[in-house]
Amino acid sequence: MPVNASDSPYLRTVFVVSDGTGITAETFGHSVLAQFEDARFRHIRLPFIDSLEKAADAAARIDQTCLTDGHRPIVFSTLVNPEINQRVRQANALFLDLFSTFVEPIEQELGVKSSHSIGRSHTVSNAAKYQGRIEAINFSLSHDDGQFVKTLGQADVILVGVSRCGKTPTSLYLAMQYGVKAANVPLIPDDFERDALPSSLLPYRSKLFGLTIQPERLAEVRNERRPDSRYASLEQCRYEVAEAEKLMRREGIRWLSTTTKSIEEISTTVLQKIGLEGRFY
Amino acid sequence: MPVNASDSPYLRTVFVVSDGTGITAETFGHSVLAQFEDARFRHIRLPFIDSLEKAADAAARIDQTCLTDGHRPIVFSTLVNPEINQRVRQANALFLDLFSTFVEPIEQELGVKSSHSIGRSHTVSNAAKYQGRIEAINFSLSHDDGQFVKTLGQADVILVGVSRCGKTPTSLYLAMQYGVKAANVPLIPDDFERDALPSSLLPYRSKLFGLTIQPERLAEVRNERRPDSRYASLEQCRYEVAEAEKLMRREGIRWLSTTTKSIEEISTTVLQKIGLEGRFY
Repeated sequence: MPVNASDSPYLRTVFVVSDGTGITAETFGHSVLAQFEDARFRHIRLPFIDSLEKAADAAARIDQTCLTDGHRPIVFSTLVNPEINQRVRQANALFLDLFSTFVEPIEQELGVKSSHSIGRSHTVSNAAKYQGRIEAINFSLSHDDGQFVKTLGQADVILVGVSRCGKTPTSLYLAMQYGVKAANVPLIPDDFERDALPSSLLPYRSKLFGLTIQPERLAEVRNERRPDSRYASLEQCRYEVAEAEKLMRREGIRWLSTTTKSIEEISTTVLQKIGLEGRFY
Repeated sequence: MPVNASDSPYLRTVFVVSDGTGITAETFGHSVLAQFEDARFRHIRLPFIDSLEKAADAAARIDQTCLTDGHRPIVFSTLVNPEINQRVRQANALFLDLFSTFVEPIEQELGVKSSHSIGRSHTVSNAAKYQGRIEAINFSLSHDDGQFVKTLGQADVILVGVSRCGKTPTSLYLAMQYGVKAANVPLIPDDFERDALPSSLLPYRSKLFGLTIQPERLAEVRNERRPDSRYASLEQCRYEVAEAEKLMRREGIRWLSTTTKSIEEISTTVLQKIGLEGRFY
């Protein structure tokens, strides 16, 4: 049954078909489809499609979904092998070929052919780089929340800010995505009473980056962890945020507010401001 | 100066230009360029290009790089705003427009126009989903290495395996990328002597997934942490891995070897095997 483009767009199945994990294509597909705010999509990832048998299974599943849905599915593909790719393309779907669409103009530009090797983006093929990411994750974990100050000097960046302002998830994201060794050290009421940075931070001023947050949001976050505590009270949150910002301003520490930002946005800004962009690709 | 496609491909600058973080485009660009094994690329990400002024700065930087390199750069763009996009396109570069290339065929397929809204992929616009990721990160951190067994029942998946086989980075990746609450519990010599799973795991059999590793690789990893210890000896690693695999086989726990796999590949397989695919998109 031919599918009419004017059919209701309100439920489409989206397949991500890859010879590797398909994670890159999946994230990319989500970004593109986020441009269609009124449509609803059901996402199915078909990873590790690296043989003609698996390609035939994938095509059958896409065809079956087309019949069940009454609409042809949207397929984001990163299949590199031409035969496997051709086999999946036999299915009835809107087929969007993420790799070959861009590989061809780049081949022309560079005057060389691509290697058509499969599933390269999330393998450990670049062992040193992968090992660097794992080491960074271990570093960020062991240097979370002011632990292991003796080895703080090995950090690429040290995030500072009041408890629960977003330091830990940002540190882990920087490590996992970029292999950045990100430590984090809390600014606590003791520091505000002394009106000074924790002494462990003083040798590493150039690596410091501050995070702050609206007191109202901080109170919400802290209340989830310790309901109705003094720690979570709006009054305490207001005090700590104001003191932390005063301290960071006086010490010349760059900082940003995390209130409405995702860990990806915070991490991007940290890398830009601290001059680490380019070192970690 | 026109650039000849037959020029040496061995050093090209790649810009990722985005109105958001550009992380999705950057990861995608890396995947595509990994198909060109002999070429070397220098990557520069230009995030948050959300005004005509910033677009003009980006175009100037691309033009300057073209002059310095003697080759026109490759530009991966996810700029959604047509005017900003047009401004950057005035630069001398191979311009690859990741979004509009695919948005147009999807518009035709669905019979609707896209919303052209910017930077949607890494914002907190889907607050509930974003909050779920942050909660999952906190859960995975607090349930790392067998901690907090009382709340293990809230886990979506519980990874088991010998010390240093890859449980922690995989748990964190599952939480960060998919919002999966991933706990992990080590299998230790005590368990092998009793020849039984830790009792804390018994109520949650259906959530268990095992990781294993080649003893030789395990000895390397452990030696980095505790050089020349009994813990890191090949003999001890061989004993623990053999016992852990025996235990998992007898208990019917699904497992995979992490030896040559990335955390993305391990996570993809865990989600497939444990039937969580589709719940976390």
